[in-house]
Amino acid sequence: MSNRRNRQFLIAARPEGMIKESDFEYVEKPIPEPGPGEFLIHQDIVAVEPALRGQMENRANYAAPLQIGDVMRALGVGTVVESNNPDFKEGQRVQGLFGFQDYLVSDGKGMVSRVPEGVSGEAALYVFGGTGFTAYYGMAEVGKPTPGCNVLVSGAAGAVGSLAGQIAKILGAGNVVGIAGSDEKCRWLVEELGFDAAINYKTEDVAARVKELFPKGLDIYYDNVGGEILDIALANLAMNARVVICGGISRYNKSGPIEGPKNYFNLVYSRATMTGFIIVDHVHRYKEWTGIMGKWIADGKLKYRIDMLEGFENLPKGLIRLFTGENIGKQLIRIA
Amino acid sequence: MSNRRNRQFLIAARPEGMIKESDFEYVEKPIPEPGPGEFLIHQDIVAVEPALRGQMENRANYAAPLQIGDVMRALGVGTVVESNNPDFKEGQRVQGLFGFQDYLVSDGKGMVSRVPEGVSGEAALYVFGGTGFTAYYGMAEVGKPTPGCNVLVSGAAGAVGSLAGQIAKILGAGNVVGIAGSDEKCRWLVEELGFDAAINYKTEDVAARVKELFPKGLDIYYDNVGGEILDIALANLAMNARVVICGGISRYNKSGPIEGPKNYFNLVYSRATMTGFIIVDHVHRYKEWTGIMGKWIADGKLKYRIDMLEGFENLPKGLIRLFTGENIGKQLIRIA
Repeated sequence: MSNRRNRQFLIAARPEGMIKESDFEYVEKPIPEPGPGEFLIHQDIVAVEPALRGQMENRANYAAPLQIGDVMRALGVGTVVESNNPDFKEGQRVQGLFGFQDYLVSDGKGMVSRVPEGVSGEAALYVFGGTGFTAYYGMAEVGKPTPGCNVLVSGAAGAVGSLAGQIAKILGAGNVVGIAGSDEKCRWLVEELGFDAAINYKTEDVAARVKELFPKGLDIYYDNVGGEILDIALANLAMNARVVICGGISRYNKSGPIEGPKNYFNLVYSRATMTGFIIVDHVHRYKEWTGIMGKWIADGKLKYRIDMLEGFENLPKGLIRLFTGENIGKQLIRIA
Repeated sequence: MSNRRNRQFLIAARPEGMIKESDFEYVEKPIPEPGPGEFLIHQDIVAVEPALRGQMENRANYAAPLQIGDVMRALGVGTVVESNNPDFKEGQRVQGLFGFQDYLVSDGKGMVSRVPEGVSGEAALYVFGGTGFTAYYGMAEVGKPTPGCNVLVSGAAGAVGSLAGQIAKILGAGNVVGIAGSDEKCRWLVEELGFDAAINYKTEDVAARVKELFPKGLDIYYDNVGGEILDIALANLAMNARVVICGGISRYNKSGPIEGPKNYFNLVYSRATMTGFIIVDHVHRYKEWTGIMGKWIADGKLKYRIDMLEGFENLPKGLIRLFTGENIGKQLIRIA
């Protein structure tokens, strides 16, 4: 064990407006001792996702409440370094809700499982985890691409959006366009991931570009951002369109009243559906989806990109980067 | 023929803000003459519906555009009074898109059909027409009541809402609550139609009442109004709720920017769906639904109420009443 203290980031404040480093408190604690039936995990990679901000505010009703002073919640992978539990042996790789800390003790009953053989920690935290399956389920089963259909994805250079657009293509979509926040991201979507086009929302007129790229309207809009871009999509729906509400990152850092999508009534004119979902409802299907997505990855059809930040001290920054749009692909932080 | 002129109301202006009588122009024209293959209809009952206002503005993409100077569009029933068409004989009752006028000539190819034997003109214009089937389809096939489910209906004393709530009950809903704009309307919903409760939105705290009446949240919200009430419903969804967007009457008379539902993101937390529809897509199913609803009416399970206004001069007022909330049940105007 390289590190004899247990470093932690606690929740210091409920974030207001843009989330910031002072919303976290750095502390050092003794490494906990595993009791009977327990084991000690040394974590090495932590994953962050936008939904964590809502959990810091207890806005998300699907996750247990968090209190000021709690270790910040996050998924991670690590290694069992000491064990009194026959199911989790020293040296085994495990994944679970490990939080912003080096070490934790588990009895194996909570959210902890072995990382499957042949799967890297990065892949376990991304494509073969909630993030990857959010993209799969949201696109394949809520969006339901039909051959040749027209698909728009916002937050397209993020962890979910970059997979969702590729999945639409794999499932037969004709025209898949991503919206992202830099020319570099847009090039990556088109040149590496096979998106048909990309729109830089920081430099282009999104409404005009969407109209131009989708003369027949959108059959699927996969929304990761909310706000104005959701309204633009709602103004450009094809008949019987599906609007998949996956995230609303433009909302998460707003304080004060947040506007709703003023074009929602186009759901009527377009006979369209707007649907929300949470991937934790579908954990029983993760194995099935691992098979489907694993094959696509092995065949080179589905690509994924890890945006790895190094150093425990960068945990809060890793989360903040999701909201400033600095990350490309899945944001992870290597802490050991 | 009691009336030798053809009275008409033309569209004089695109409505702005609250629709008003000066948006219409009254004119008198000669009675048209049917040519070969044509027949003359003398209309006696005209139906109005909130969607007509959107059509005056050409906001509805499912209906042909209307121009200033056009006869105001509306459904009606009448009698064939002169005919050169073997399919439509003198004395037959017909229904169709007849407009705000006494007489019109048809070749039988447009939106005109015979009123079925044994069906009154009032029923043809309401329960066995687009209005009734909007309630049926929206509740039965979009809302999809399950046994014991919790249902909220806004605009509940209107033509669609009053049927939609009863249909939910017939299909097994446990708790059906209507929102309406007067104590008289609320009493009618509960005492005559069998709603479990009603909320007077003009005198009660709707948010508090919805919370109190639905401790487990809403499985179905059938929306006829939009605005704040839609937001209250979105804040009270049960898991996997269905939000049926049928109308948005609170929006139709607003000028300037209209706010969207700021609580739309609860669709995610509640894994819910918000769906729009237009009944004209389902005309091929009207016969099937006539059978279903006809049986319910014959069995005394489904009640409907006509709000009949007398006199041609009251056609604009009949439409305006929908927006001031004066009507209870289906607003019709008897013009002959």
